[in-house]
Amino acid sequence: MNVKTVLILLVLALATIFALVCVLLTRGRAPSPCQHQPPEQQDTGDSQSLIFADLSPEEMVQVVRYLQGHLGVQLVDASRAKPSESCIASIDVQIPTKAEVLRFLDEGGARPAREALAVLYFGNQPDPNVTEYVVGPLPTPTYHRDVTVQKYGGKVPYHRRPVTTKEYSDINTLIQQELRKAPRFLTACCESDGTDLAILTTAPRGFRSGDRATWFVLFHNVAGTGYYLSPVGLEVLVEHRDLHVSRWQLHKVFYSGQYFASMGDLEKAFVDNLLEVTRIEKPPAEGVLGSMRPRHPPGSMEPLQYEPQGPRYRVQDNRVTFQGWSVAFGMNPNSGPRLFDIRYRGERIVYELSLQEALALYGSNCPGGMSTRYLDGSYGIGRFAYELVRGLDCPYAATYVDQHYLAESETPKTNQNSLCIFEHDAALPLRRHFSDSQSLYYGGLRRNTLVIRAISTLFNYDYIWDFMFHASGAVEVRVHATGYISSSFLHGRGTNYGNRVGMHTLGTMHLHHIHYKVDLDVDGQLNSVETQDMEYELVKAPWSMQNTIERPYLRRERLEKEDEAAFLLKAPLPRYLSFASPKTNKWGHSRSYRIQITSSSGEHLPISSPMERAISWGRYQLAVTRRKEEEPTSTSIYNQNDPWTPTVAFADFINNESIIDEDLVAWISVGFLHVPHAEDVPNTVTVGNGVGFFLRPYNYFDEDPSVDSPDSIYFSREQDLGVCSTNRLACPPPACAPLLPPFHYGGFLNLSLALPPNRL
Amino acid sequence: MNVKTVLILLVLALATIFALVCVLLTRGRAPSPCQHQPPEQQDTGDSQSLIFADLSPEEMVQVVRYLQGHLGVQLVDASRAKPSESCIASIDVQIPTKAEVLRFLDEGGARPAREALAVLYFGNQPDPNVTEYVVGPLPTPTYHRDVTVQKYGGKVPYHRRPVTTKEYSDINTLIQQELRKAPRFLTACCESDGTDLAILTTAPRGFRSGDRATWFVLFHNVAGTGYYLSPVGLEVLVEHRDLHVSRWQLHKVFYSGQYFASMGDLEKAFVDNLLEVTRIEKPPAEGVLGSMRPRHPPGSMEPLQYEPQGPRYRVQDNRVTFQGWSVAFGMNPNSGPRLFDIRYRGERIVYELSLQEALALYGSNCPGGMSTRYLDGSYGIGRFAYELVRGLDCPYAATYVDQHYLAESETPKTNQNSLCIFEHDAALPLRRHFSDSQSLYYGGLRRNTLVIRAISTLFNYDYIWDFMFHASGAVEVRVHATGYISSSFLHGRGTNYGNRVGMHTLGTMHLHHIHYKVDLDVDGQLNSVETQDMEYELVKAPWSMQNTIERPYLRRERLEKEDEAAFLLKAPLPRYLSFASPKTNKWGHSRSYRIQITSSSGEHLPISSPMERAISWGRYQLAVTRRKEEEPTSTSIYNQNDPWTPTVAFADFINNESIIDEDLVAWISVGFLHVPHAEDVPNTVTVGNGVGFFLRPYNYFDEDPSVDSPDSIYFSREQDLGVCSTNRLACPPPACAPLLPPFHYGGFLNLSLALPPNRL
Repeated sequence: MNVKTVLILLVLALATIFALVCVLLTRGRAPSPCQHQPPEQQDTGDSQSLIFADLSPEEMVQVVRYLQGHLGVQLVDASRAKPSESCIASIDVQIPTKAEVLRFLDEGGARPAREALAVLYFGNQPDPNVTEYVVGPLPTPTYHRDVTVQKYGGKVPYHRRPVTTKEYSDINTLIQQELRKAPRFLTACCESDGTDLAILTTAPRGFRSGDRATWFVLFHNVAGTGYYLSPVGLEVLVEHRDLHVSRWQLHKVFYSGQYFASMGDLEKAFVDNLLEVTRIEKPPAEGVLGSMRPRHPPGSMEPLQYEPQGPRYRVQDNRVTFQGWSVAFGMNPNSGPRLFDIRYRGERIVYELSLQEALALYGSNCPGGMSTRYLDGSYGIGRFAYELVRGLDCPYAATYVDQHYLAESETPKTNQNSLCIFEHDAALPLRRHFSDSQSLYYGGLRRNTLVIRAISTLFNYDYIWDFMFHASGAVEVRVHATGYISSSFLHGRGTNYGNRVGMHTLGTMHLHHIHYKVDLDVDGQLNSVETQDMEYELVKAPWSMQNTIERPYLRRERLEKEDEAAFLLKAPLPRYLSFASPKTNKWGHSRSYRIQITSSSGEHLPISSPMERAISWGRYQLAVTRRKEEEPTSTSIYNQNDPWTPTVAFADFINNESIIDEDLVAWISVGFLHVPHAEDVPNTVTVGNGVGFFLRPYNYFDEDPSVDSPDSIYFSREQDLGVCSTNRLACPPPACAPLLPPFHYGGFLNLSLALPPNRL
Repeated sequence: MNVKTVLILLVLALATIFALVCVLLTRGRAPSPCQHQPPEQQDTGDSQSLIFADLSPEEMVQVVRYLQGHLGVQLVDASRAKPSESCIASIDVQIPTKAEVLRFLDEGGARPAREALAVLYFGNQPDPNVTEYVVGPLPTPTYHRDVTVQKYGGKVPYHRRPVTTKEYSDINTLIQQELRKAPRFLTACCESDGTDLAILTTAPRGFRSGDRATWFVLFHNVAGTGYYLSPVGLEVLVEHRDLHVSRWQLHKVFYSGQYFASMGDLEKAFVDNLLEVTRIEKPPAEGVLGSMRPRHPPGSMEPLQYEPQGPRYRVQDNRVTFQGWSVAFGMNPNSGPRLFDIRYRGERIVYELSLQEALALYGSNCPGGMSTRYLDGSYGIGRFAYELVRGLDCPYAATYVDQHYLAESETPKTNQNSLCIFEHDAALPLRRHFSDSQSLYYGGLRRNTLVIRAISTLFNYDYIWDFMFHASGAVEVRVHATGYISSSFLHGRGTNYGNRVGMHTLGTMHLHHIHYKVDLDVDGQLNSVETQDMEYELVKAPWSMQNTIERPYLRRERLEKEDEAAFLLKAPLPRYLSFASPKTNKWGHSRSYRIQITSSSGEHLPISSPMERAISWGRYQLAVTRRKEEEPTSTSIYNQNDPWTPTVAFADFINNESIIDEDLVAWISVGFLHVPHAEDVPNTVTVGNGVGFFLRPYNYFDEDPSVDSPDSIYFSREQDLGVCSTNRLACPPPACAPLLPPFHYGGFLNLSLALPPNRL
């Protein structure tokens, strides 16, 4: 070997060293990310769930095209349509009847036609009305069917329609015009010329069917924070019933306890020195009440959940599977999240589990506040479920799914990443026992839960909708309220209706009432309702007859009629109430699922109220009725603007029919009284503000199904606990860095400030 | 350069390459573990908390030595002591009076003397009794003071003492002797010679003060699984009141619905064919009812929480600090976990938050089951809080703390790692708002909670005790029940008392009732109780007097007397109830903490029961009383064995004293009715079996304190969301592998099978 060769080798070697050092340094900075294993293949039939799928944007486009071509009506895009014109209000999937679906899913029947439900506002007809059509078959519709009368027993009068963004926008223009009539007052009270005030709608809009007169509350609008906390004391009543916007007018003006016929009158009273004005400063851009801007630099990083071997659940189209669970999910643009065909180990437990309505009912000494009974379904619990923020709304590593909807438009819209799915470690044993007697062992299982979540922003507040699936076969449904409170301008005896939370801000007391439909099918469609509770019996001690024992015993009952199974809010609910199959488990007990409710609802409204029937679902913490295709929902989006003649009145569902061995639905309401306090600023916290219910197996299985979990842990004293092969807990996690995608958020992209959204 | 030099360099280079490759391969396998940052220094005063610290083993030893030398009594180690001898039952810290403590903590007063409370069973005295001494000062005691009469208003009769392990052991010996009298019966019924049967105690032990006759239930004992599910139908009543073990005897025998005077009688009935015997097979070693052995090999790894930069809380001695929280923790060997001096942002909110008692009350048609009312404090909720299993009982990365106790012994014992502390990601926003109107922004904060946990194994079941501290200033207290159910042998109308969960097993219905003491000090010691709830008022609409509105309003009340603040289980609790300071927040409202309870307790016992007063705390979901040094606990360990003359009767604390601006204690009971069902096998799951309460700031602050969290997130549309400097969520976690210690578990080491533990 000559010097040259050796030198070349040496140079090569040095280059190699250099390369290795580079690699080493790079590797040092970025260790190999964790390898993801594909989740185990679960049961098949994925495409079957598509029968429940929300419409795709392409399907929506097809329906719009069909409607435009086949109704013989001049349709204007809802974002531009005047009340006197006609428009498409919304298009959603029309799920086939349960009978059709089950024939398809369970009996190998044909796949039912895919259909859409289109809601149209017909403003340019002699008798303006709302009409609902079923349009099919998708993807290329050939027919439409007016289902309005069939669904509601009559036509839906036009005045019942929800207020569109365009209508709010026109109202806003009117209010802005009117505000100009009180320039000196506005300068004095609010350092404002009116253009920097935001308005918030209230509802319902009057006192009787046909009314459409709405109180709007005015707030200082501060960029980047919740104006809901800065009422200026001014509220205006807008009459917007007429189909001609030009005929709308301000009917009343309220300022800090006094009522005026017009803004002009208010200005006059002010100029004449007849008005006591509370001078409010314009809130500063920073440091304003309710600001959420961090006040301190970030500290060290929060604990983080990661999946060393990747997600263990599987999301395919509209279906998620996880450790025996299979759930089809979707989103109704109005009423929000809906689940179908919830199965565990292949057996259907729930046919439908869907949010129905969210009521927020306020008290105040201001007119807007005192008359507010928001029925959020009429605004759109589903369409306002916006993009979720990775790492805060859901765990960073969650799976995020887009939702599409068509509402007040002829074009589908997408809420990207607006539904998240993840496996959560509750940091709690699902079950465990440490044996300290006879033999020494330990067994248990971590409580890992599959969570499906969406969050709806409705006006000021945000509802967090959770559906959770446990390894014990239990379903948990939970809602938390957060976001901004609503408020009134503090005046007079305001604190009879809440607490003062700012210089001029009264946090107004309100009820949250949430309604769910739970169509349980426990080991088949035909179920009965069984209740159990405890009583004491005084018995002689059998071994010592001169002595007595107070012995608890079980009072078992089977409810026979709907009326018996309708539990008013204040009625005691039996501690155990379950949907029972006629079939029994290994031990002879009816295979059942128990309904367990956690709630502290306040009275939804006195039954004497003329609008109570519109929210009569709120009467009952739980009501079980026979399932009927004609009773698909407990409320209607038309109830908000005409609660005095409710389009759907839930109380009518309860008509004492037999509920023994029938297809039954449990209607569950949960809620709480919220008296806002200083700590609701900036936002209500979720701690203590969550309610919900469980569906728990109750003698449904022969033993706890979690014994089959591959995550089960068991060891005894005799074993070497520190060894991975005998004790899974001792297995070190793979030495790799968590694999997480970069942060992205597009939630603002869909929104335009040019047109204020539906709720202003 | 000659060839040789170049060759040497080449060889060196190759060696370097080899070394680098080796390093590279190693590094590839084990990326650098995450670097932990020390948590920020929180407020000081750590050593002050030692005033609440449990005794150290060294201190216990000193007290034992002192007692041995200064009582003038012959002490036998409790593990060997006969009833007719004297022994040390337990030694615990004696916390100084609140006045002394506060003088020290708040007013710079002298540190009070450190003292112990020693409980002695004096069996070898003319009038056998239980005596309690305060011994001090530690570390070198020089005095002892008999506090029995002062604490209990009289001497504590010997018959009230809890049953020791030695006493159980002697009973077991007696039962084993007796079983030998029915060999043919035992072979026929149970494939047993008696030696393979386990016994389970019940309590109370009779019908009137002085009684000490206990029903023991016999089970097939199967190694490695819960024998509690395998009753054989045989129960025996043992009279063990006499101080001489030789005089103890079996008083009654129960077999599957029939009672006999003795085992001999039972054998005779069997031999004479007068007895119907249910022949039960001896359970197989594997596959037995209740086995927790995994049935499937482990799958892919569960999600795992890690702390990229280490824990953010700090544990020093008996005190943990975290984001403004500071909590002193400890464990009473009898009553379990106790927290002191809970401060948030330097202000004390709670002086004492401690578990008092856990009652489990059963129904059955077998004598043992039907008479069981376990008061777990008398067995030892604290001393049976065993080592926690890393990664299942608590998150793998939690901090684990040892607890020491001295009970029925002259030697301290340690439950290693029996208390865990961790920061938990609830995978839920604490608060959030997405703004879709006026300006587009998002703000929020993750719900990260500091958790302090212990788990007590009491007989068959396991209680998970959680104390949680939120960034909103709220404290959450929660208990979950898991472990094995208790059971009776199924016979006759057994299912009136539960559900059948095995071939011969009746899961017996029972109540869990848990009692807590919460000594709130809200902005000072002197507080009042304020309640708020909603009502409707029918008012004329001020702007339209011909119309009416049902308007909710707030009914505010201040409770004046203890009797008004004692809420019976069935009484409606006002939706808002808070401890209020005379001082106000910025908005003029009393600075308050609200108590919010989540529970569904069943009736603890009819008030007519002769033993009800012993658990009269169970009458009330909430009772507020004036705090008194003479009312330190709501129950006593002596109540279990003499509930007919309760040593402490909580109902006596409620005597209608004024509770306006006084030092007050909230006594809170939570619980639920448990009707065991098939899915309670092997173990009750925690899902749906948790109850508890919140202490939430209510106008205590001027705004939600979480706005100051360094974890707060805020971004608006205008910002570049993907950049770490503007949006913390976009900061990638350090690319490193979670740093986790190897698995270790020593929980079995402390336990011996030679002597059966206290409960058999």
